[in-house]
Amino acid sequence: MSIAYLNGQFLPLADTRVSVLDRGFLFAEAVYEVTAVIEGRLVDSDSHMARLERSATAIGLTLPLSSDAIEAVQKDLARRNKLDEGLIYLQLTGGADAGRDFLTSTALQPTLLMFTQAKHFLDSPAARTGIAVVTTPDQRWSRRDIKSVGLLAQAMAKRIAAEAGAQEAWMVEDGFITEGASSTAFLVTDEGIVTRPYSQAVLAGCTGAALTALALESGMSVTYRPFTVEETLTAREAFITSASTLCQAVVRIDGRQIGDGRPGPVATRLRQLYIDFARRTAS
Amino acid sequence: MSIAYLNGQFLPLADTRVSVLDRGFLFAEAVYEVTAVIEGRLVDSDSHMARLERSATAIGLTLPLSSDAIEAVQKDLARRNKLDEGLIYLQLTGGADAGRDFLTSTALQPTLLMFTQAKHFLDSPAARTGIAVVTTPDQRWSRRDIKSVGLLAQAMAKRIAAEAGAQEAWMVEDGFITEGASSTAFLVTDEGIVTRPYSQAVLAGCTGAALTALALESGMSVTYRPFTVEETLTAREAFITSASTLCQAVVRIDGRQIGDGRPGPVATRLRQLYIDFARRTAS
Repeated sequence: MSIAYLNGQFLPLADTRVSVLDRGFLFAEAVYEVTAVIEGRLVDSDSHMARLERSATAIGLTLPLSSDAIEAVQKDLARRNKLDEGLIYLQLTGGADAGRDFLTSTALQPTLLMFTQAKHFLDSPAARTGIAVVTTPDQRWSRRDIKSVGLLAQAMAKRIAAEAGAQEAWMVEDGFITEGASSTAFLVTDEGIVTRPYSQAVLAGCTGAALTALALESGMSVTYRPFTVEETLTAREAFITSASTLCQAVVRIDGRQIGDGRPGPVATRLRQLYIDFARRTAS
Repeated sequence: MSIAYLNGQFLPLADTRVSVLDRGFLFAEAVYEVTAVIEGRLVDSDSHMARLERSATAIGLTLPLSSDAIEAVQKDLARRNKLDEGLIYLQLTGGADAGRDFLTSTALQPTLLMFTQAKHFLDSPAARTGIAVVTTPDQRWSRRDIKSVGLLAQAMAKRIAAEAGAQEAWMVEDGFITEGASSTAFLVTDEGIVTRPYSQAVLAGCTGAALTALALESGMSVTYRPFTVEETLTAREAFITSASTLCQAVVRIDGRQIGDGRPGPVATRLRQLYIDFARRTAS
């Protein structure tokens, strides 16, 4: 039975409930993070905690616990759930009010939720074979730098991908790929690694940031610029990064093969560099 | 103590909770309606039920009850809560899964929530004096025709309005007003009543639709076209419509007075026409 944390209490996840007046439920006034766990330890947690703080501040929420205290709860949850490899989900909401009103009259107690999910991402079949991606219009709001739970557009994009037999959707705006529905998008071209620069148009990916730092340290070239759907077709390789996939090669986009249809050398090397980094630095 | 309805049960609102694994909470995969109640009866309910059905279908949800059954619950709730004048809030979500995944492997039982809020909108001070509005960039997603709970952009806009001493925010895209954060926007110009045509850029307002029908029946002219922020400054009148405000004059936009700074004859007449319609047709 999986144990969750909710506002200071540890409860069975299946019995963990929030008020229907919670602003996370009524207004999607909530931000979240997903942190990878390897060997029972948190991967790249400083980066996730920093982004959580940025997201919370951007929507006017204050974290009820320090980063250190949150990490202590996450480690406790990993222990309680015997989580060796998987994810820790964290959600912070504006809290429950006395009724439903866009404006709150009083300072509410925020809702802080965490729970774990076992997942084998180190040796995943998708990482060995690569994944298929479809492109779909980016229908999201303009503040994608905030990691909010307003994920309906992403859920709809994921459904479109699944219906096409793909594992991820790359969202397109003005002809350019913004990012994946739950991942950062990368190409490998003659220029080297290409990915979109940070702005309000995309989420600053923690895994992507660590990975590009590793690539640069290893002497690879990284170019930050938007890229088009057309460019993906002539790319040598394509790949995604996220806390839950680490780094996965993309071998098919909109049904068309990328490279030789198998994970290429750059994505394969970067995945290994990231796994080495994760094992080395997880705490 | 207010009584809510959740999936077939009537419970004290303050004790009504949903699983933290509810897709409404994790992904904002949920749609909603707010229906006005006058003299204990539902106002313009067919229109709200039709829009609920459209919103649900658009995000892949199926209503667990027929419109008639939903209305029966709403009337029951109004009785139980002795609601003479106020609102009934309804929210339908994708339901709770066994864990968090963008894709659900099985058909989930949707979550259907309803609760009431007493509110005196027939004789409201804001209706007598008119309200102030500020304009702010429209940051929402591109499917605003779906009445989803992804309302963070609207909540942020409402906060900007409140900080400026205003009661509503009019959102601006490409120089044109789209709509209010929780209302439809109207001007009265030399052309008559002006409001934006329906598209994916705005919600099809139930109250606004009924009101324009009443205006046309009364021989007024209604022009459906987008209007700019600049146009608002030379408008004779401005007003908003919504289930929770009915029709309220806007007498100040971004600190600049509209007309003579008091509710004008068109907004005043339309408000009365709407109230008469609501009293006459509520069921």
